[in-house]
Amino acid sequence: MLAANDSFYAAFEGRDMDAMSAVWEHSDRVSCVHPGWNVLRGWGAVAGSWFALFGGPQHRQFILTNHEAEVEGDVAWVTVDENLLDGDQAAATVTSLNLFARGADGTWRMIAHHSTPVAPTVG
Amino acid sequence: MLAANDSFYAAFEGRDMDAMSAVWEHSDRVSCVHPGWNVLRGWGAVAGSWFALFGGPQHRQFILTNHEAEVEGDVAWVTVDENLLDGDQAAATVTSLNLFARGADGTWRMIAHHSTPVAPTVG
Repeated sequence: MLAANDSFYAAFEGRDMDAMSAVWEHSDRVSCVHPGWNVLRGWGAVAGSWFALFGGPQHRQFILTNHEAEVEGDVAWVTVDENLLDGDQAAATVTSLNLFARGADGTWRMIAHHSTPVAPTVG
Repeated sequence: MLAANDSFYAAFEGRDMDAMSAVWEHSDRVSCVHPGWNVLRGWGAVAGSWFALFGGPQHRQFILTNHEAEVEGDVAWVTVDENLLDGDQAAATVTSLNLFARGADGTWRMIAHHSTPVAPTVG
């Protein structure tokens, strides 16, 4: 399941739509909230948002910190801070809740990604 | 599980710490992100945040819209928009992902609440 979370961020950084598609469950129950966006539901809408982001000018790079993973049956969730880099400076921090479900084939796939900007940590 | 979600918002609007405490799983694996805050982990930290919010001057009232609930085994998640009222005007909208786990006693308890402010919907 941590591998699925890692694959998500690799696809995000690499702007790799095929890899991002492989990370997600392709179903109506998936949801995605990009910072400041309304919730998107269903793989079609979620996929469209990644196409739009990957087609945009901004190449995101992260340092991931403060992550914790929990598993309950065939569902897992990860809380993680995405520290967005601008050059080698941390430009912004987003805290995310990533939700995964394990399919019948044993593969963990993302079913929700919910991100919110947080105030920079002092210190 | 929808009853647990309803209880959460009733406790929130009612600033009722006992009711809020009953909604949550009291464990280390719970997490909570209030809009703009860093993630809080563990029931102690989460409880502290509700004490602080309920002790503050702001009395929040919501109209909940756009909610969907999904269940997978003993885990459920709700995506919902919280339209915060200022008098009878919608002052802000927050989109939330609420996560619940069903305990051995069959009771659904909140294990994550992750909120993010969204841009007002036009139209």
